[in-house]
Amino acid sequence: MYGPDITFLGVPPCDLAELPDADVVILGAPFDGGTSHRPGTRFGPGAIRQACYLAHDGSRPSLAMRVDPLRDLRVHDAGDVEMFSGDAAGSVRKLEEAVHTIAATGAIPVILGGDHTIAWPDATGVARHVGHGRVSMVHFDAHADTGDTEFGSLVGHGQPMRRLIESGAVRGDRFLQLGLRGYWPGPETLDWMAGQRMRSYEMTEIVARGLDECLTEAFTIATDECDGVFLSVDVDVVDPGMAPGTGTPEPGGLTSRQLLDAVRRCCYELPIVGVDVVEVSPPYDHAEITAYLANRVVLEALSAIARRRRGDPWDPRQPLLQGR
Amino acid sequence: MYGPDITFLGVPPCDLAELPDADVVILGAPFDGGTSHRPGTRFGPGAIRQACYLAHDGSRPSLAMRVDPLRDLRVHDAGDVEMFSGDAAGSVRKLEEAVHTIAATGAIPVILGGDHTIAWPDATGVARHVGHGRVSMVHFDAHADTGDTEFGSLVGHGQPMRRLIESGAVRGDRFLQLGLRGYWPGPETLDWMAGQRMRSYEMTEIVARGLDECLTEAFTIATDECDGVFLSVDVDVVDPGMAPGTGTPEPGGLTSRQLLDAVRRCCYELPIVGVDVVEVSPPYDHAEITAYLANRVVLEALSAIARRRRGDPWDPRQPLLQGR
Amino acid sequence: MYGPDITFLGVPPCDLAELPDADVVILGAPFDGGTSHRPGTRFGPGAIRQACYLAHDGSRPSLAMRVDPLRDLRVHDAGDVEMFSGDAAGSVRKLEEAVHTIAATGAIPVILGGDHTIAWPDATGVARHVGHGRVSMVHFDAHADTGDTEFGSLVGHGQPMRRLIESGAVRGDRFLQLGLRGYWPGPETLDWMAGQRMRSYEMTEIVARGLDECLTEAFTIATDECDGVFLSVDVDVVDPGMAPGTGTPEPGGLTSRQLLDAVRRCCYELPIVGVDVVEVSPPYDHAEITAYLANRVVLEALSAIARRRRGDPWDPRQPLLQGR
Amino acid sequence: MYGPDITFLGVPPCDLAELPDADVVILGAPFDGGTSHRPGTRFGPGAIRQACYLAHDGSRPSLAMRVDPLRDLRVHDAGDVEMFSGDAAGSVRKLEEAVHTIAATGAIPVILGGDHTIAWPDATGVARHVGHGRVSMVHFDAHADTGDTEFGSLVGHGQPMRRLIESGAVRGDRFLQLGLRGYWPGPETLDWMAGQRMRSYEMTEIVARGLDECLTEAFTIATDECDGVFLSVDVDVVDPGMAPGTGTPEPGGLTSRQLLDAVRRCCYELPIVGVDVVEVSPPYDHAEITAYLANRVVLEALSAIARRRRGDPWDPRQPLLQGR
Amino acid sequence: MYGPDITFLGVPPCDLAELPDADVVILGAPFDGGTSHRPGTRFGPGAIRQACYLAHDGSRPSLAMRVDPLRDLRVHDAGDVEMFSGDAAGSVRKLEEAVHTIAATGAIPVILGGDHTIAWPDATGVARHVGHGRVSMVHFDAHADTGDTEFGSLVGHGQPMRRLIESGAVRGDRFLQLGLRGYWPGPETLDWMAGQRMRSYEMTEIVARGLDECLTEAFTIATDECDGVFLSVDVDVVDPGMAPGTGTPEPGGLTSRQLLDAVRRCCYELPIVGVDVVEVSPPYDHAEITAYLANRVVLEALSAIARRRRGDPWDPRQPLLQGR
Amino acid sequence: MYGPDITFLGVPPCDLAELPDADVVILGAPFDGGTSHRPGTRFGPGAIRQACYLAHDGSRPSLAMRVDPLRDLRVHDAGDVEMFSGDAAGSVRKLEEAVHTIAATGAIPVILGGDHTIAWPDATGVARHVGHGRVSMVHFDAHADTGDTEFGSLVGHGQPMRRLIESGAVRGDRFLQLGLRGYWPGPETLDWMAGQRMRSYEMTEIVARGLDECLTEAFTIATDECDGVFLSVDVDVVDPGMAPGTGTPEPGGLTSRQLLDAVRRCCYELPIVGVDVVEVSPPYDHAEITAYLANRVVLEALSAIARRRRGDPWDPRQPLLQGR
Repeated sequence: MYGPDITFLGVPPCDLAELPDADVVILGAPFDGGTSHRPGTRFGPGAIRQACYLAHDGSRPSLAMRVDPLRDLRVHDAGDVEMFSGDAAGSVRKLEEAVHTIAATGAIPVILGGDHTIAWPDATGVARHVGHGRVSMVHFDAHADTGDTEFGSLVGHGQPMRRLIESGAVRGDRFLQLGLRGYWPGPETLDWMAGQRMRSYEMTEIVARGLDECLTEAFTIATDECDGVFLSVDVDVVDPGMAPGTGTPEPGGLTSRQLLDAVRRCCYELPIVGVDVVEVSPPYDHAEITAYLANRVVLEALSAIARRRRGDPWDPRQPLLQGR
Repeated sequence: MYGPDITFLGVPPCDLAELPDADVVILGAPFDGGTSHRPGTRFGPGAIRQACYLAHDGSRPSLAMRVDPLRDLRVHDAGDVEMFSGDAAGSVRKLEEAVHTIAATGAIPVILGGDHTIAWPDATGVARHVGHGRVSMVHFDAHADTGDTEFGSLVGHGQPMRRLIESGAVRGDRFLQLGLRGYWPGPETLDWMAGQRMRSYEMTEIVARGLDECLTEAFTIATDECDGVFLSVDVDVVDPGMAPGTGTPEPGGLTSRQLLDAVRRCCYELPIVGVDVVEVSPPYDHAEITAYLANRVVLEALSAIARRRRGDPWDPRQPLLQGR
Repeated sequence: MYGPDITFLGVPPCDLAELPDADVVILGAPFDGGTSHRPGTRFGPGAIRQACYLAHDGSRPSLAMRVDPLRDLRVHDAGDVEMFSGDAAGSVRKLEEAVHTIAATGAIPVILGGDHTIAWPDATGVARHVGHGRVSMVHFDAHADTGDTEFGSLVGHGQPMRRLIESGAVRGDRFLQLGLRGYWPGPETLDWMAGQRMRSYEMTEIVARGLDECLTEAFTIATDECDGVFLSVDVDVVDPGMAPGTGTPEPGGLTSRQLLDAVRRCCYELPIVGVDVVEVSPPYDHAEITAYLANRVVLEALSAIARRRRGDPWDPRQPLLQGR
Repeated sequence: MYGPDITFLGVPPCDLAELPDADVVILGAPFDGGTSHRPGTRFGPGAIRQACYLAHDGSRPSLAMRVDPLRDLRVHDAGDVEMFSGDAAGSVRKLEEAVHTIAATGAIPVILGGDHTIAWPDATGVARHVGHGRVSMVHFDAHADTGDTEFGSLVGHGQPMRRLIESGAVRGDRFLQLGLRGYWPGPETLDWMAGQRMRSYEMTEIVARGLDECLTEAFTIATDECDGVFLSVDVDVVDPGMAPGTGTPEPGGLTSRQLLDAVRRCCYELPIVGVDVVEVSPPYDHAEITAYLANRVVLEALSAIARRRRGDPWDPRQPLLQGR
Repeated sequence: MYGPDITFLGVPPCDLAELPDADVVILGAPFDGGTSHRPGTRFGPGAIRQACYLAHDGSRPSLAMRVDPLRDLRVHDAGDVEMFSGDAAGSVRKLEEAVHTIAATGAIPVILGGDHTIAWPDATGVARHVGHGRVSMVHFDAHADTGDTEFGSLVGHGQPMRRLIESGAVRGDRFLQLGLRGYWPGPETLDWMAGQRMRSYEMTEIVARGLDECLTEAFTIATDECDGVFLSVDVDVVDPGMAPGTGTPEPGGLTSRQLLDAVRRCCYELPIVGVDVVEVSPPYDHAEITAYLANRVVLEALSAIARRRRGDPWDPRQPLLQGR
Repeated sequence: MYGPDITFLGVPPCDLAELPDADVVILGAPFDGGTSHRPGTRFGPGAIRQACYLAHDGSRPSLAMRVDPLRDLRVHDAGDVEMFSGDAAGSVRKLEEAVHTIAATGAIPVILGGDHTIAWPDATGVARHVGHGRVSMVHFDAHADTGDTEFGSLVGHGQPMRRLIESGAVRGDRFLQLGLRGYWPGPETLDWMAGQRMRSYEMTEIVARGLDECLTEAFTIATDECDGVFLSVDVDVVDPGMAPGTGTPEPGGLTSRQLLDAVRRCCYELPIVGVDVVEVSPPYDHAEITAYLANRVVLEALSAIARRRRGDPWDPRQPLLQGR
């Protein structure tokens, strides 16, 4: 929508109107009309698609997972949904349709944000296909995004998770949040969240118990009575020092390494049915490091999905060159 | 709306609900939901209010005009209108009401944008008080902003001037544009503009004839059958080298000096009834130079208004210290 | 002093001349005349006060500590002390008076720097109230700041800790330093420090033993024969990657997360009587990340103080929504 | 070559191996191995192609020239020549072949640099088609680029003009340079230039006489005994304040406006047979302003070529909307 | 003082304690303790000395003036005076001594700032040699710098010109200021200036009359009853778009080209006895463009001095290669 | 080569033609002609030499190691090798000669890059002295750098390790790589690496097993049948958040702290015969943090070498002031 027409690292383009037989369809959501502070995420899809120093050749062999996710999976890029940032309500409707169209073909939609407003249409679009209440959510974020309204609007980047639970698209007690911290939301909203039986891992708990233990516990909840898991990654879950290019930075987050490893575990251990990567704001980035990180989050997710599909066991302790 | 609650260079605050007896009321319009490219102008009002190295003491004695606009005029700051960037239509309605409220007291509203979407409610709010079709427009900009729709919306930063003329708030043949250049809009829109008998000075004409000659000609048109003039200054009329902090930069513009002198002439020679200064986007600025420029555009306008009201003649060739 | 008159996240302002009955009084020390390298910390107080994406409404409910420090404590902001950076000696005198004035009311002064020169007047102002030698110091920093003179001056950001010990305001054997590293000071100064029986944890020891073990040991020393603890946080204790906006960056520091958790422990486990947060230099910052970090250091300190005062036990492993 | 595969503002791509029937073929030369100071121009072609806030739709109606150069001319983009910056000698050979291939079809090659090293193969490639010594050169630059060797190499961005004259591709007495200034080259090289009867307009002469008078004089020389003119635009001819994104900035240059108007005159008044736009270095740019300027230099050149081909007279004083 | 020990573009170093027989001695004044807003000029001397893309070989042949100022004059660099920014009063004393030491040898001191505080010791140091009241001042600046006190101090970057006139070092009626603009100082100070019979050219007068006419008039005053002229160049006289790296930017200034040409005229037409170039603040610069400009101001001054000494007439209209 | 002539933190200069009796000789390799993406490392040597806030006095007492590497060792700086980035093949030949010249004197060459192309001549130059196949390599990097050709060239920053093994300068089975990650190289190259019996620790293994365990294992291999170890540190082994100033950033790397500690262990526990620190690209850096990190990598290496030579045991758990 902004800038030239490109695809994610050179994977083949596709058209929403006649989708190919794909494993994964990438979709851009260049929308920042829902942000409560710094905008700029409208340039996120373009930045994430091209943040790489390697040739844009539709191939990325993962050293760690020993797969080439862009080749082992059939990955296409459907381009951007036209989303006018001045019309949040209309934009989310358009996006939900596009995501549902993709999910309905059986492909996994991977949506590149855009601000976090889009998680509402993203997960709803998937749930319309998989079944309302049958999709668990694993949500990496510094913020709970469970606000009721902001600036008088139900639609915005602080409210998508509430909308998803209220509508029944995702069950509150299958909602796993990781990385929360800071000073928002207040008690009223936290009470509402508790009432929904959400499970939110604040950074203090993660530090005290270890991220891996928290993930393992969360995965048990996520896979209970569910047909698929939606993974929503807000790049601000990472510390602002390693992901400055975002709108509402909250110090004290995960390292990039922790996020990449956690995304890998999610996609290797869980039945992923949809992914979004949001809140990359290029105007606040430096030397593209946040866009690079988001690009790698996508690749890590796809690599783990590909490896999971291959079926053979994977050992993180195996030396890189062993077994070649 | 974003950040701490401050006023323009420390002038006294005021409340829209009970406006004081003022000559000028400053109003922030922190909205960037209408921009077609780089956002960030939501931070414009805050940036413009504080872009100064002098104390925020509500006093600024102009060397050139020999007035202190913040003291010689009664200037108050009504703060920001709450404008959700994700709801362009609702936001412009709120802003129009606020501007009209100010204009109705007889004060000159000076609106700090925000993207240029706001010119529609700004000038409409004034015209509702002064009279539809009785307000001329002097419009500095790289772009004509006379588009019909964009992203399917009537509201946006490329369309405000069309809305103003269509509604009759401002007459097309009392619409003076200065500084246009580049590759937009296309023939269809230009034909519509010609049909409205607008007068648009492209940079080529300005360079060939001289800015002063063009201004003099424009002022004659602007003051014909009119009760007041609205001045709308898009900072992108200045060359991007001198005003990089903006969303849609078009090389080849005026110098900062030219803009300041032109604004001075407008406000000294014309019966100004409203002003807006728009399209300052702090995330793209460097060392605040664009915000400083916009701050000085406001001060230059107020200084000239104050000097005009004082009534004695002013000679730009007079040495600074002469007559002291 | 620089820029508009604002308070820390919107807490009520107060006047040093007639201080209210407060638990905490925030004070700005916009001084960078003592820095030996990059200046810019004069803009630290303004930046720290407003580095937040939430409304400046004087409320910040801490997710982790389950308190709202700005509401549970009576927090006021006394604005900036006027400190001319070209007069270091005069400036520290003024600041010491201001800090003492606050401490004398029983409130905890929280001083926003400014370069680290201010730790001398900050801790002295507190010690004058609590008692010379009765205040321990917990000092997070990459540098020992125990130099004798620099550029021929006793006053400067590399010397405050020496001045404090020499004057007896703080006992050398109740001086706990954490995070030191790099190549300064030299043997002579280290010998002086050893002679004072200071306890300095270099990063190598912290990595080898773990930060938590070091903190526990330090707390034992700090609370031995002392009536209160002053906490001095130099933001350069954090790695430059996560806190680039500072004057004398030394690679290999703590993570932001480590600093926030350590500050929390200090203020929850120790009887804090004063705090300063220093060396935030906005001109070298990117996307405000260092200012955000310093803002959160203040909030983390206040949250832990509030929780300590509430008295009930706190468990870092408790899930966020448990017990609601 | 670097980043995704895009064309200049969305014009149709083409393949050097089977060139279409085109008026203009754009070619990228992503090479910075010849620069003597700041590199980065390898990212110039990609940056220039996309530096625009309008849709990449292959259409750009010029307000000033009343043509749509991307539609009125048949413009194609042949992509980048693969040029390894570590092999300057090999890279210029490849580029010369590519340019000659384009020129041989009768199309005007428009080469996007890259550092100024490329002017040698650019103009040579054209001269091989038009005739050695039959192509005049109009060269906008802060620097004469007539050095003999640098770092022991004949190939580099300070030497292309010498190579062109030495080889006879361009006659020294048909070499027009505009905008030179500063402190390079020294007397020996200037003597060589004088010996070749080059005509170089230093900024002092341009300021004293006026750019328009200098251009008119230069055009007379350029069109004497020549079959075509090559236009080489080094963006550093513009003042660094308006074109910071370049490798060897020299203060005191033209304004952006002056360059755009001068390029327009060249392409409207002269029989252009080739164009290059060089020395845009994105890593040193701010808010893309230098890339935008270079993009507009290309569009201005194409617009004037299109208008020249249309044949009807053009008056810069004509109001924008007159005659519609 | 900050960073490595380097000389201006590689000219030979010298020692203040035993000065060589020189025409020009360069001196760094790395002081920013007197600035009222953005600091950073302490890094000015280092930045100005090295801001060049050519080899640091102590040679710079001027294209325009046809001299090599670094070779035709005997230019040495005495390094930096140690100036602690936290001690403004002490620092100016040290600097005055150093400048006087240079002037006393008959060499022209060229001082690289540092903030404008240094103009007081700079011109005083020269006047102590040439004679109090026998040195005229030509002062390019956006600001008059004639304040009485600031932050309670007589020493600061807003007051040097007042101190010079009060002490009699420079006569008020031989004080020529060019480029003033904006909103400082107020009437009281302006009255004082008028009382001293200063001649200050505000930008409005410069635009209305032309810079060259103003300079010619100023030169007549400057050379009346005077034995030498001190040239003080505050880089903020240039528009912030072209010189962003400064502390108190005021929009609407000269272009870089205008400043370079004006400095050339000063040094070619007047008997210069001292020069300072001040207010370059690298932390606020972009791509070094302000440092480059200041470097060129120094070179332009030296080139014109060298040409003046050579004695033969100089014609700005002469083509670059003519007469070779 | 670029900028002024300075030495590493003020150590004495030396001349390659007559090398002094030194322990360590520093050499700059200002070359970026081999990079496949972002250039700029030509400015690496200059940036690394001066990235420090302390005086450039040739002394740096290490807090952790209790040595002053610049004084306890005889360290000289031989300046830069002239390397034209447009001639990769010629440049590596020159560099190899220079490194060999240093190694032949028995001094340890420490080469400051430049891009990683230089590892080929660096380690070859050392191996020519120590013996082909007698030098092990410890290589910190995000990338294996074992490509065959790129852009048709054998010389480049993605291929040096292959050249070293092919030539026999370094044995493949004594090649230890740490920190690899991401999506390059592909299976063919990995197979070649496995065939050479290289040992490469991908980040996944490092996270799973711990960096210290991996290092210990690697050291055992490195010291088997070897006479010395070459340490090659690509700064991109660190996470881009902490080292943004580099050409090919790969998220998910080590922290700065981990790298510094690992370099310390290498140089304290292994018989180092050469070091290079590469891929620092100042144009992409922020606030010099990457240059600071590289400067500290050099100092950490030298400190550990000095401590190793002193011979007494070193305990990382020892308190800083203990034993003084």
